[in-house]
Amino acid sequence: MKGTVLYGPRDVRFEEIETPTITKPTDAIIRISATCVCGSDLWPYRGLQPVNEPTPMGHEYCGIVEEVGSAVRLVKPGQFVIGSFATSDNTCPHCKAGYQSSCVNREWMLRAQAPVLRVPNADGTLVPTPDIPSDDLIPSLLATSDVLGTGWFAAVAANVKPGKVVAVVGDGAVGLLGVLSAKQMGAERIIVMSRHATRQKIAREFGATDIVTERGDEGVARIKDMTKGIGVDSVLECVGTQESMTQAIRCTRPGGAIGYVGVPHGVELSGEKLFYTHVHLHGGPAPVRQYLPKLIDLVLDGQINPGKVFDLTLPLEQVAEGYRAMDERRAIKALLRP
Amino acid sequence: MKGTVLYGPRDVRFEEIETPTITKPTDAIIRISATCVCGSDLWPYRGLQPVNEPTPMGHEYCGIVEEVGSAVRLVKPGQFVIGSFATSDNTCPHCKAGYQSSCVNREWMLRAQAPVLRVPNADGTLVPTPDIPSDDLIPSLLATSDVLGTGWFAAVAANVKPGKVVAVVGDGAVGLLGVLSAKQMGAERIIVMSRHATRQKIAREFGATDIVTERGDEGVARIKDMTKGIGVDSVLECVGTQESMTQAIRCTRPGGAIGYVGVPHGVELSGEKLFYTHVHLHGGPAPVRQYLPKLIDLVLDGQINPGKVFDLTLPLEQVAEGYRAMDERRAIKALLRP
Repeated sequence: MKGTVLYGPRDVRFEEIETPTITKPTDAIIRISATCVCGSDLWPYRGLQPVNEPTPMGHEYCGIVEEVGSAVRLVKPGQFVIGSFATSDNTCPHCKAGYQSSCVNREWMLRAQAPVLRVPNADGTLVPTPDIPSDDLIPSLLATSDVLGTGWFAAVAANVKPGKVVAVVGDGAVGLLGVLSAKQMGAERIIVMSRHATRQKIAREFGATDIVTERGDEGVARIKDMTKGIGVDSVLECVGTQESMTQAIRCTRPGGAIGYVGVPHGVELSGEKLFYTHVHLHGGPAPVRQYLPKLIDLVLDGQINPGKVFDLTLPLEQVAEGYRAMDERRAIKALLRP
Repeated sequence: MKGTVLYGPRDVRFEEIETPTITKPTDAIIRISATCVCGSDLWPYRGLQPVNEPTPMGHEYCGIVEEVGSAVRLVKPGQFVIGSFATSDNTCPHCKAGYQSSCVNREWMLRAQAPVLRVPNADGTLVPTPDIPSDDLIPSLLATSDVLGTGWFAAVAANVKPGKVVAVVGDGAVGLLGVLSAKQMGAERIIVMSRHATRQKIAREFGATDIVTERGDEGVARIKDMTKGIGVDSVLECVGTQESMTQAIRCTRPGGAIGYVGVPHGVELSGEKLFYTHVHLHGGPAPVRQYLPKLIDLVLDGQINPGKVFDLTLPLEQVAEGYRAMDERRAIKALLRP
């Protein structure tokens, strides 16, 4: 079969790779219904993270189970399933504590930008839907696999609760779905930092109440102005740069919380500076598995439509164009159909 | 009057200084019953923090109100009062949120190692006891002013709850009172990292269940061993060095929490490393004012005896010996009586 391989900066190839097969009794093989390009894929694509060898890409997926290993009990061929970018056994102490993305048997998913995928730890990773979903639900179900689960975790980590004032740093798909998540959790006011009209529009649809276009000192001043000088209760940091993290910290009120889910690149925090801000800091790779059942239900019940973040749909073989469009910010997020 | 002034590394002088008077209508003047030397005083004393000019010292205090400014309503001359190292109006949004040490009108206390002290924001800072306490309670009441309040905040920030497994990094007075606090909050297991027999003994008296003498990799391995490889739920970081913070982070389970109250000196955190640990991080200057009424009640009711951390009592004029004894670790904490 053909799959996606990154050779180096801006060098994405759709080329012949081995079709995966069961290698461990806990594996499942699924035929991908839809996959997509992640904001985190852009770090190596842009050369901001080294690519030491040709690297198979993709970690967001949903599809139909084709085959399962001999130890798999909870997932059956023919089921439509969704899984996370971090596989988990869902039984270890970290999983039981709700941190499946720190599972002692975790494997990071790769190779999902392909027609067929091997999923390790199938029982603890894949969540089946009750029926085969209709085609129009596929984008929203695919979104639960990573971007929605990650935005949701950002809101949980930022301690979003009914009545709270929330700011979202980052208007990518994760940031936008952070808005949706904060809205679902009852936030009273949701301020999005964004300069892009199309993203602002989706943010509003997802529940944003305010848009701030300023950045840096001006952005902080604007948010302080909007909150009587206090700062916001919760910040969702959905980028992962020094600038975005600094922005997040400076916008938060003393005692407020930052949920950071943008994989940090070159971010250094001064312990002393952090100390005097009095913020809570929590984040990491989202434990999507914890949230999948709930998020899938919300999608199937028609209560949320996270698939809106996919503003470009391409046949899988045009994956390179998906990367280009996202890199050039022509697209928020590219959905790929094999 | 004579008071304590730090001139430079290891140069503490008890010398003639101006007797304070009311300078703002919100001030109070108190006659100090007891004060003490803080672990944080040792940073400049040891030359690890610059002393650019002769600096009056001391920020832990309790005593009798002598005089109040014209705007003071809640505190009256003749009352015995205790206050925090951070003054607060106790009415601003940060105070109302429980972060009085980030009060918009905060002033850092200094000059408390003296017989008479001016306390700004008197109404929002000082907490009177119902009666003049007996002399034997003075050490424990003084402890609420900073070290106990700080250890308490460390436990709150580390999310200590009934049944939790807790580790305490640092066996100074704050760490020891962090043990007492965790015990009060119902922790099931309290592991203290300590190499000093006298401190281990007090830690046990305060509720520690386990002592770990190893540090660095070995200390982390020991704590992982004790927790079936999982790590602890809560860590109280009561030192403020890169080593202690790293130790704290590495001992915490994914999803666990670190309460850090040791003022960080030269601590740098890698955003990326922190991200993959999945820890919660919260700390800062303890909002002691929030806890004072409760802590004072616990002392007056005889439920806790935090004054045990004072293992050296000196007349105030021997303050320099107090610094020396703590610097040389001959004393845990030196109480000074004018």
